Amino acid sequence: MWPSLEWKRDKLILIDQRLLPAEEVYLECRTGEEVAQAIETLVIRGAPAIGIAAAYGVVLAVRGIRDKPLLQERFEWIVNRLRQTRPTARNLFWALERMVATLRKLAPLAPEEIVQGLEEVACSLEKEDITRNKKIGEYGASLIPASSTVLTHCNAGALATAGYGTALGVIRTAFAQGKIKRVYATETRPVLQGARLTCWELAKEGIPVTLITDNMAGWLMSQGKISLVITGADRIARNGDTANKIGTYSLAVLAQAHHLPFYVAAPLSTFDFNLGSGQEIPIEERSPLEVREVRGQPITLADIPVENPAFDVTPATYITAIISDRGLAYPPYEETLAQWSKQETKR
Amino acid sequence: MWPSLEWKRDKLILIDQRLLPAEEVYLECRTGEEVAQAIETLVIRGAPAIGIAAAYGVVLAVRGIRDKPLLQERFEWIVNRLRQTRPTARNLFWALERMVATLRKLAPLAPEEIVQGLEEVACSLEKEDITRNKKIGEYGASLIPASSTVLTHCNAGALATAGYGTALGVIRTAFAQGKIKRVYATETRPVLQGARLTCWELAKEGIPVTLITDNMAGWLMSQGKISLVITGADRIARNGDTANKIGTYSLAVLAQAHHLPFYVAAPLSTFDFNLGSGQEIPIEERSPLEVREVRGQPITLADIPVENPAFDVTPATYITAIISDRGLAYPPYEETLAQWSKQETKR
Repeated sequence: MWPSLEWKRDKLILIDQRLLPAEEVYLECRTGEEVAQAIETLVIRGAPAIGIAAAYGVVLAVRGIRDKPLLQERFEWIVNRLRQTRPTARNLFWALERMVATLRKLAPLAPEEIVQGLEEVACSLEKEDITRNKKIGEYGASLIPASSTVLTHCNAGALATAGYGTALGVIRTAFAQGKIKRVYATETRPVLQGARLTCWELAKEGIPVTLITDNMAGWLMSQGKISLVITGADRIARNGDTANKIGTYSLAVLAQAHHLPFYVAAPLSTFDFNLGSGQEIPIEERSPLEVREVRGQPITLADIPVENPAFDVTPATYITAIISDRGLAYPPYEETLAQWSKQETKR
Repeated sequence: MWPSLEWKRDKLILIDQRLLPAEEVYLECRTGEEVAQAIETLVIRGAPAIGIAAAYGVVLAVRGIRDKPLLQERFEWIVNRLRQTRPTARNLFWALERMVATLRKLAPLAPEEIVQGLEEVACSLEKEDITRNKKIGEYGASLIPASSTVLTHCNAGALATAGYGTALGVIRTAFAQGKIKRVYATETRPVLQGARLTCWELAKEGIPVTLITDNMAGWLMSQGKISLVITGADRIARNGDTANKIGTYSLAVLAQAHHLPFYVAAPLSTFDFNLGSGQEIPIEERSPLEVREVRGQPITLADIPVENPAFDVTPATYITAIISDRGLAYPPYEETLAQWSKQETKR
């Protein structure tokens, strides 16, 4: 597997996902601020990966502090800073909430012990994510029939998580079970995570993958070339409404029009049990340059107005099933998700 | 207006659409073969523009020939050569059929008179195309309500025709009538005709335009930002099934799911009255490099498998109305299109 991140106690090493697949460059973050910037600039992306990186960013920001009030101050500053990097992915806030709860619990201890406790939690989030992804893979693979051709969008793979992946985790497991003939990967404009990251991950593993532009998906569905669609998620509301990479909503509507299953795969850390529906999910609007340029090269007029929502929300009615590390949920989602919420709180 | 082509008797001047909007470079074609290559390599594209360029290509191939058997031989060669440049756009074959019929009619005349007659027909196709587009604009504008925000795909503008445009002709007329608030242009991967050509055309004319990636269309529809969709066409069958730029089908399905009108605008030269349905329309598969690269820059692995259909077919059931220079057709289309066919044959 290619870890999206590697923890080295005094630094967090990230593969620079902006340069893949042309170059494999590793960046070292030695401060919390460096981690925040890596998240903002998409050195690391993918909801679960962002959450884990943020937890390590907190550790880097408080490492070596021996003064308790200063530790508290730096902790609050970095949590606030990391919260502001990207608004949509639930896992970021979930991981930071875990760190905040940990600090609260360890408050009576000495600064060294607090920092050690925070580091242990960050490491456990990383390990836990891989375990969760493998469970998602098992549950999800049970939904994949033999000889499937699977369409996926963006990158919900090893690079988007601590390893293995959510949507690509299901694909990995189902492929190992001999059920997958071919994966179709949408290139995923504007940032091209499908063309750059998903193709790279799958090709490395020998899983047959065909790259298409985003606008080919409907036509391939109508030609009988797609058996089902599976994507990851950035945030899932209590009713199953799912925020994910821009273009996911169009694929879900197209899948329904062609009577194809549309699955969402995500760990419990992606679920936002505070939100009743997807209308409450904040959608990040990113720089117009991402649309006006491709890999730094202009493709249009320099001053053309642009819309660039990084995500969209797929209403639960378009989702055939949600695959989590707790199992499978079917519509209506409220009841199953409420059970998952209770189990998660008890842990 | 920016003519996509300019006829100079001994040469055909084309704006190199591959370089727009960064550079405005004009290419001179002095032979029929040069025109054929310009069509193949997308120097000129757009169904109506291809047809007219091909007609001029025929004239260039037979210019100055004083020997009648040689003229006949060169004529047959160039018609055959041009037929093989691109398979989907009906206008190419329509224009070549016009040239073949003209040669047949003029066969008794002297070579000089034949060449002159062919040139006159080519010129009339060009003039006629603009007249047809303006009629399309008038008919189409009657469908556009006040304060519309219009989504269009690819480029069906002045650059895709002899001037004015089909889908963009409707937009131009409706804008002049004060009915259009804003146009949303999909970038139209892989060749980016929307980002490069449609944005350029509309911005030059002061029509407000916003560029989006292809995968944003469904989300914008769901947010109430789109009033209607209008595209051009490359070939329309007797039942109204329409081949157009890849991605058109997805937009039509998405429009129907959001209860938005989906209009197709095309001159009669785009209609193929020989074909009963869209299943008979040949779809061009282009080079994988168009998908693997953007403006010559790799965006994925060099050897990744790719699908690259240049067009898709939108079944008539998804089309609210077809706008031609003969008026408006509504589903079921057979009867109105049969009438148009008879009127066209009589001309």
